[in-house]
Amino acid sequence: MDKHESEFTMIQSVLLDDENDTLIILDQTVLPNEKVFLHLKDMKDVWEAIYALKVRGAPAIGIAAAYGLYLGTKASKAADFDQLRQDFGKVKEYLACSRPTAVNLFWALNRMENRLLQEADRSVAEIKEALRQEAELIREEDAKVCESIGKHALTLLKENWGILTHCNAGTIATAKYGTALAPIYLGQEQGYSFKVYADETRPLLQGARLTAWELKEAGVDVTLICDNMSSIVMKEGKIQAVLVGCDRVAANGDTANKIGTSGVAVLAKHYGIPFYVCSPLSTIDLECKTGDDIHIELRPDAEVTTQWYEKPMAPEGVKVYNPAFDVTDHSLITAIVTENGIAYAPFEESLPKMFAQK
Amino acid sequence: MDKHESEFTMIQSVLLDDENDTLIILDQTVLPNEKVFLHLKDMKDVWEAIYALKVRGAPAIGIAAAYGLYLGTKASKAADFDQLRQDFGKVKEYLACSRPTAVNLFWALNRMENRLLQEADRSVAEIKEALRQEAELIREEDAKVCESIGKHALTLLKENWGILTHCNAGTIATAKYGTALAPIYLGQEQGYSFKVYADETRPLLQGARLTAWELKEAGVDVTLICDNMSSIVMKEGKIQAVLVGCDRVAANGDTANKIGTSGVAVLAKHYGIPFYVCSPLSTIDLECKTGDDIHIELRPDAEVTTQWYEKPMAPEGVKVYNPAFDVTDHSLITAIVTENGIAYAPFEESLPKMFAQK
Repeated sequence: MDKHESEFTMIQSVLLDDENDTLIILDQTVLPNEKVFLHLKDMKDVWEAIYALKVRGAPAIGIAAAYGLYLGTKASKAADFDQLRQDFGKVKEYLACSRPTAVNLFWALNRMENRLLQEADRSVAEIKEALRQEAELIREEDAKVCESIGKHALTLLKENWGILTHCNAGTIATAKYGTALAPIYLGQEQGYSFKVYADETRPLLQGARLTAWELKEAGVDVTLICDNMSSIVMKEGKIQAVLVGCDRVAANGDTANKIGTSGVAVLAKHYGIPFYVCSPLSTIDLECKTGDDIHIELRPDAEVTTQWYEKPMAPEGVKVYNPAFDVTDHSLITAIVTENGIAYAPFEESLPKMFAQK
Repeated sequence: MDKHESEFTMIQSVLLDDENDTLIILDQTVLPNEKVFLHLKDMKDVWEAIYALKVRGAPAIGIAAAYGLYLGTKASKAADFDQLRQDFGKVKEYLACSRPTAVNLFWALNRMENRLLQEADRSVAEIKEALRQEAELIREEDAKVCESIGKHALTLLKENWGILTHCNAGTIATAKYGTALAPIYLGQEQGYSFKVYADETRPLLQGARLTAWELKEAGVDVTLICDNMSSIVMKEGKIQAVLVGCDRVAANGDTANKIGTSGVAVLAKHYGIPFYVCSPLSTIDLECKTGDDIHIELRPDAEVTTQWYEKPMAPEGVKVYNPAFDVTDHSLITAIVTENGIAYAPFEESLPKMFAQK
């Protein structure tokens, strides 16, 4: 264990080791059974980590890619800017194909390129240092966005509340704090005692493998339930608020998030429990009018029938429907919490105001 | 394979082998990978089979318990009625603690006791034979009850409908036909083309392992989903009715059934889809005023965290809440279908009438 690992009080999934100039990531593929930090020395290590889902969560992928671009460019033997720019371009192209559908990946790589261009008149060494700083900035900004979301969301919660969350929108999916879990961590720092219920989130079990793990590591009171137990814990009065992250928020507030989110929202409404979506502004897409415009990805049957099991848990050849996301209707959402404040219905009016405050 | 196994056309999960006087059950814990029939020789075998869910489903448990009570009493060395009655009482008490929430278990054991008392003036050998006959009667009557439930429920369905079911209330949970699946099987015989969605029903996956298996075996169009996909399939218009079985129905219609049932009922109400409970009269407990009086069994953490997985899927030592059942409020239930007809709200009035018709 080196000094960075020992310093992690809240787990951070992506961090640069300044002394050795290596990227340290938490290997999310072996959780919750092993806590392994990988030391990535070059762009190939980073590519492999992103490709193999060792680092996951849109913000965390972006941060890792930015560091990868720095590490790859640092290895360049270029003597001048034009040569460096060529090498940079190759690294960028290489990293871009690690997860071709990840929007945050391209966003981070483009931001690094803008920085490169801004520094054109400086020395190669200075430019490399600027790229390191930019990757650091991306990480720090993400942590600040998450922290702000956490501060705003925390104003909605009260001491001793039971909080249900779905999937993983935690610290390991971001630079730090997470989105939906940010108020839990900030609350814990301030002495709140929340009782968190993490549903396991079939079929990929992000709730069981990741959320329950990171909250337990941080000393938060967390209880694991199956997805179909959300109703009973709400009915029994164990839950005072639901907090979830999101993959895309439409202009009217309709929210795409991990499959099952819309069901939790319907239950929350039925039992009179507030349902909060925690969303960085970067996840709100005002160009997208409603949830009907959001394409839902269908994933392989094997995720439901065989993955992780010792033996198949469904009859061979059975038809499976396995959508990765669903859309929660805006009418089920109590509020959408951003880094710039809390948006309430009508969201068509409140969401643009969040951007205006930026 | 003995003669009983080869005779199964629609799978029967509980059957007495007359020649060897052993109870043959389909081991539901190894489905869908293996179709294994167990031969239970004594009351301990039966207790273990019920406790370990090798036989499951309220009616099938009742049938197995009745046979278990017969097998246990048969082993008695009593020379007279009083002694036999004592031994019978011990066997009854022993079997009664195999599954505390199962009302059919107690119902079947009590019915066996009534038969014992009726036969008080006969020889020990004759009484034992009477108990065997009574267990057989319970099984035969259950098949008839299920068929009647199926006929009534079928009147509520229309050709080509999408039907969501939870857990397994199929032929293998009963003597034959099942309860919630009875109208599907009867409909299929009459040429209906239903599209059944079976949710997997975590943590024990009865939907994936059992319902999807038995419907596929019978040639029914069945699609497997995760529990948290019920909301999206309803929202997408794929579902026109929900059919579920039950473990205990209170006088006001509150219904205890497999964990997750109440959540499906809330979703069905939200999306305007009828929610039908299929219940033999033996599962309706008019002594039980409301669902608040129903004890909910809590089951081991390992069912959620490790069972069936290659490696643990949750952090070691994490708190788990694992209730086996939940109670669906009567206000969420469109109708309760019994062998004597269809009961609508107010159930306090309609349910007693179902008994009166018997």
